[in-house]
Amino acid sequence: MERVVIALGGNALLRRGAEDTYEEMYAAARRAAETIADIAADGWEVVVTHGNGPQVGRILIQQEAAAEQVHPMPLDVCGAESQGQIGYLLQVTIGDVFFERGMERPVATILTLTRVRAQDPAFGRPTKFIGPFYGEPRAKKLAEQHGWVVRADPHGGWRRVVPSPKPYSIVETPVIARLVADGVVVIASGGGGVPVIEKGPRLIGKEGVVDKDLAAAILAREVSAGVLLILTDVPKVQRGFGSLMPEDIDRLSLEEAHRLLEQDEFGSGSMGPKVEAAVHFVEGGGRRAVIGDLTLAREALRGDAGTEVVDARDGD
Amino acid sequence: MERVVIALGGNALLRRGAEDTYEEMYAAARRAAETIADIAADGWEVVVTHGNGPQVGRILIQQEAAAEQVHPMPLDVCGAESQGQIGYLLQVTIGDVFFERGMERPVATILTLTRVRAQDPAFGRPTKFIGPFYGEPRAKKLAEQHGWVVRADPHGGWRRVVPSPKPYSIVETPVIARLVADGVVVIASGGGGVPVIEKGPRLIGKEGVVDKDLAAAILAREVSAGVLLILTDVPKVQRGFGSLMPEDIDRLSLEEAHRLLEQDEFGSGSMGPKVEAAVHFVEGGGRRAVIGDLTLAREALRGDAGTEVVDARDGD
Repeated sequence: MERVVIALGGNALLRRGAEDTYEEMYAAARRAAETIADIAADGWEVVVTHGNGPQVGRILIQQEAAAEQVHPMPLDVCGAESQGQIGYLLQVTIGDVFFERGMERPVATILTLTRVRAQDPAFGRPTKFIGPFYGEPRAKKLAEQHGWVVRADPHGGWRRVVPSPKPYSIVETPVIARLVADGVVVIASGGGGVPVIEKGPRLIGKEGVVDKDLAAAILAREVSAGVLLILTDVPKVQRGFGSLMPEDIDRLSLEEAHRLLEQDEFGSGSMGPKVEAAVHFVEGGGRRAVIGDLTLAREALRGDAGTEVVDARDGD
Repeated sequence: MERVVIALGGNALLRRGAEDTYEEMYAAARRAAETIADIAADGWEVVVTHGNGPQVGRILIQQEAAAEQVHPMPLDVCGAESQGQIGYLLQVTIGDVFFERGMERPVATILTLTRVRAQDPAFGRPTKFIGPFYGEPRAKKLAEQHGWVVRADPHGGWRRVVPSPKPYSIVETPVIARLVADGVVVIASGGGGVPVIEKGPRLIGKEGVVDKDLAAAILAREVSAGVLLILTDVPKVQRGFGSLMPEDIDRLSLEEAHRLLEQDEFGSGSMGPKVEAAVHFVEGGGRRAVIGDLTLAREALRGDAGTEVVDARDGD
């Protein structure tokens, strides 16, 4: 049976502009669940990964609002919380769709830790904005108090910034691989996993944010998936993103992908990292990576939608 | 290999009176991890379950403090969050102890849902106090706003009360059983699992609190564990709890346990439900249930500490 790792982007999990109520989040999870069930019904072994940025942001706001009554937890613990929250919504909705369609496939959510390197230069250069927005004086006071780095956010106000170290392996791969081989639809690597470093024999959680698509690419290699499917809310990757004449891309060789990445043709926003993750997967031996729209996932898997990244030398 | 389900009580996870900072929680998880590693080193297959009352309480306080900025999530979602939080701390600390001792045992946290019955009379009779304390007028206003039931808490103030329906099966048992048979130390059924009812083919999360020891007993039966080990911070169950002359109990037959439960000899606090869970496990065919102190867990498993509940007819 062929195996696919499906990476659900934030925009595949909650419609742009939708309010982040429980009802909207449930509805969004339900839409994703329909897609995942379609793919499972087509005979794929499935691992589902997902983002957690907005959810962790909300947990941080809640922690801060209650800071006088409840001790706030560090970011790694908040990330684990968000994995529980999002995993729950996905697991229940995927389970529902399976039941409704008479499919007997167990679904399980595995709390995931992702190894990063202690000497990753990212730790000295925090870049990811997280949590609440502050005025400058308050931001600086909090920074002093908690040892945070804070910075003016281009969207206005000041915020905390944290490192985004490169993931290199997923702690739970053996468990995930075992379950998926048994036909379980596994939800894992939420938010890219909680970043941990190895210190002697210990795993130490770090306050940082792992790129979720890159973590998905690594997980996909480690569980020997044939395909990495990165789902968002746009149908194809575009060349000349943001220009007057952007151009849809159907297929990218590794060589072209590298060239366009260097030329920053995808915009530095969210598509660049997705193409990088796709490249990482295919360079590591993965057969195909496809980036596309959640609602066209089945077609993308068949090669009829989305943007495919392949190793042209394979003559595929 | 023999299999044990270990139920960590709240008092085994955080010392009475300790502040609920990250450092204290980590230290408490680390103490529990040492015990779990001892037991795994003795050759047991291990499933770990744990409470989540204080953690969910803190999440509810945080949600409320930020309610004007962030939409609060229902209690089932908060329960899932707490499973991520506590599972993470346990998983990291258990993993650390294994590494330090040169033991190669994977550890995994499985988000757990627990089936309860839609027609459980508990849904009409909410009894469990949760979340923040309010003055009476505010409590009544919130009740009207959210459809809550609120009540005067014996500890002072008013609080929300939610149902505590009886669990009857664990949704993730097949996955948990598979992993534990492969030597994985599985953390599951946190807080008794998120309660769900079956509505046609769908699983619907309910706002309620499942007794974590009873859920552990059900999980222990479902994964065919020989022993259910319920750990808290007292060495033995006592007869005449709260009286002038309480008496330690080494061993209870099912018959005696039933009799003492009826006479309310264990206090209605936390020990009664633990004895009930032990009875449930042994009546369902489990070999032994033992209730005892976290620091004497290994001895309790050997029969040298704690209070053992057995089926006297077995002549064990």
